[in-house]
Amino acid sequence: MSLSRSPLENSNTFFELEPQEVSIVQTLREHGELSRTDLADLTGFSRAKITHVVGGLVDRHIIAEVGEGESSGGRRPRLLTFNSEFGYVVGVDMGATSLDIALADFNGHILERHYELADVREGAERILSRVTAIISDQIAKHGISPERIYGVGIGVPGPVEFSKGVLIVPPIMPGWEAYPIREFIRNAFPYATVIVDNDVNVMALGEQRAGAGVGVENFLFVKVGTGIGCGIVAQGHIYRGSSGCAGDIGHITADRNGPVCHCGNIGCLEAVAAGPPMAAKAMAAAKAGNSAILSRLMDAHEQQLTAEDVGIAAQQGDRAALEIIQDSGRIIGEVLAGLVNFFNPNVIVIGGGVSKIGGQFLVAIRRAVLHRSTPLSTRHLRIDYSEINEDVGVIGAIALTLEHQFVEKQ
Amino acid sequence: MSLSRSPLENSNTFFELEPQEVSIVQTLREHGELSRTDLADLTGFSRAKITHVVGGLVDRHIIAEVGEGESSGGRRPRLLTFNSEFGYVVGVDMGATSLDIALADFNGHILERHYELADVREGAERILSRVTAIISDQIAKHGISPERIYGVGIGVPGPVEFSKGVLIVPPIMPGWEAYPIREFIRNAFPYATVIVDNDVNVMALGEQRAGAGVGVENFLFVKVGTGIGCGIVAQGHIYRGSSGCAGDIGHITADRNGPVCHCGNIGCLEAVAAGPPMAAKAMAAAKAGNSAILSRLMDAHEQQLTAEDVGIAAQQGDRAALEIIQDSGRIIGEVLAGLVNFFNPNVIVIGGGVSKIGGQFLVAIRRAVLHRSTPLSTRHLRIDYSEINEDVGVIGAIALTLEHQFVEKQ
Repeated sequence: MSLSRSPLENSNTFFELEPQEVSIVQTLREHGELSRTDLADLTGFSRAKITHVVGGLVDRHIIAEVGEGESSGGRRPRLLTFNSEFGYVVGVDMGATSLDIALADFNGHILERHYELADVREGAERILSRVTAIISDQIAKHGISPERIYGVGIGVPGPVEFSKGVLIVPPIMPGWEAYPIREFIRNAFPYATVIVDNDVNVMALGEQRAGAGVGVENFLFVKVGTGIGCGIVAQGHIYRGSSGCAGDIGHITADRNGPVCHCGNIGCLEAVAAGPPMAAKAMAAAKAGNSAILSRLMDAHEQQLTAEDVGIAAQQGDRAALEIIQDSGRIIGEVLAGLVNFFNPNVIVIGGGVSKIGGQFLVAIRRAVLHRSTPLSTRHLRIDYSEINEDVGVIGAIALTLEHQFVEKQ
Repeated sequence: MSLSRSPLENSNTFFELEPQEVSIVQTLREHGELSRTDLADLTGFSRAKITHVVGGLVDRHIIAEVGEGESSGGRRPRLLTFNSEFGYVVGVDMGATSLDIALADFNGHILERHYELADVREGAERILSRVTAIISDQIAKHGISPERIYGVGIGVPGPVEFSKGVLIVPPIMPGWEAYPIREFIRNAFPYATVIVDNDVNVMALGEQRAGAGVGVENFLFVKVGTGIGCGIVAQGHIYRGSSGCAGDIGHITADRNGPVCHCGNIGCLEAVAAGPPMAAKAMAAAKAGNSAILSRLMDAHEQQLTAEDVGIAAQQGDRAALEIIQDSGRIIGEVLAGLVNFFNPNVIVIGGGVSKIGGQFLVAIRRAVLHRSTPLSTRHLRIDYSEINEDVGVIGAIALTLEHQFVEKQ
């Protein structure tokens, strides 16, 4: 390896480059394949400077020439991109009850993907051991040595102190507080830059790279599942707030007369409108004899219902189920309406498990936002389901670590 | 004048400088007086580069040497700052019913200040004619010619399309929609860079330069007066949102059973908790015979009360007045609690006319935020009254135009 990796703060490793090299690398990361002329236009560097800087990066095998672009008259320009075999990275999407892990090349193309159920409450050591074991299996299949893993990006379902890569006061992850995730991963993959972030931030990054957030300056990714959280992109960058907990919208008061939330407060958005309260309302409707379809589903599922079942019942025309879905959508929309007035985004992407519940949920969210936001703030606003919902976590986690591969020499 | 002003987009004028000159100028703008060594540390440029670039700026009279700094051993370093007489700028804080105008030197020091009542509903031409007349008086006093006015920053009480410097759908400013404010001002001051922004954004900038926002990455400036609005600083910069209307928190639903707002919706924050509803509640209490003090004040003020009167009554121990103040504070705090969960700021500054109503109002806001925000989001949060409330508008408006004096040569 001709580049030097040097241990920095928190024993994370990075490649150090000259400032102009970092500019070129970041521009390629954002745009994919570019000609030298494109690079000169985008960076503002002279053509001679581009030739010199690109030459150095090609010599060190960081970027490579691939195929030819469109000609604007003369001979076709050669296109530049990352050398996909320069190294490999891993994206980890850690859910409350699942692990989704993807091995990717240096251009972010996924080579292997593995999904399994795993309960984060089993503790950091056990879960992280599974993570490293899965990655080891994946790289073995491709004949890649652990030393060639240059980055691991991890999205976790709890608040993260981003600069340190540790969880802080994680409500659903007992035993993970301040656990040294980076060090654990780097014991197995010593050359890996390990970046840990909150799951919705990672998903927002995934949307920015490959979904409804491409090229959008200000947008929100709202995950509705067991809880409700929100990733924020402000002026093109993930916004984490002052303590790293920005976007924690699940505990905004939605109903002053609502049920007690696990956080101790009353009527929090996620206690009123997330998956579990929808399931609870459906079970109550079934027990009260208000829905034959929900009763049948409940009998078939050992007297339990999930938000998914509510969606199935609604699709079969069940009125009680439809009302539950519309209520949840309306309540979420009312909270989002306030955030639209405050944040004035271009786009809101709705993802997470509950977003698979059918179109009525989205309609109810949209209607409440339009009804309760100012006309000016919704003038250019789109609200849609994520079109990459199943992949957005790993795509974001891969992007997160690729973004942190190169730093400016100090 | 050895520098060229060139007309750019929207016929605004700027000084064009080399990129490294712009870096030096911005660093000085943020830090005030600096030595060459400080500049080298802050910009990362070599000492030789600093000497060269600073030399060019001194030759063109943009920056000047002033006094000496602390020595770290050898001889005392010379300090650099803007040449205060390079040009002059004006900050205009336009309220719904007032004009506050300050003439300043190129370091932002105020030379003249003028305040008068003026109703924006009189229309753009009339109000802007007053603005140019006041500025003309101010510069005449100091023997400054109109050609030496290099910038005018204006905060207006309505939503602004920042890139064009025009108001969009201004609810309380009929006749101002799309009015060419820049062109009007530049007829009188042809060399002025005219920057128009929403009043709360300008106030947030004022707090960042001279108040509770100095050095704070993420904070909110909340103005409580006739309406309620919020300026947002995210990652050190004013955040305006996708249509320029970010921070319009006055129309967030605060009480579903509340009164109809002038926007047509029900129970908007400003319809429930701003100055006018406080005054209305006080008049109702007086009429119902629930407050002898409020009744006396009402008799003394032609059967009208203001939010200020409510504050006076509360300070005299009036229970009804105190309850009105606490209710408003609690309702504002409940809305801010949701925004704290979402935005996770370090600081919230409360300003505007109603912030002069006494300490109980602030206490009620703080209490509601602490009660309804997540513990993590309030861990490092301060909520305070603005300490520069009377000046924050003009300070911000001056900073706004000084920030836009120099642009990079294309």
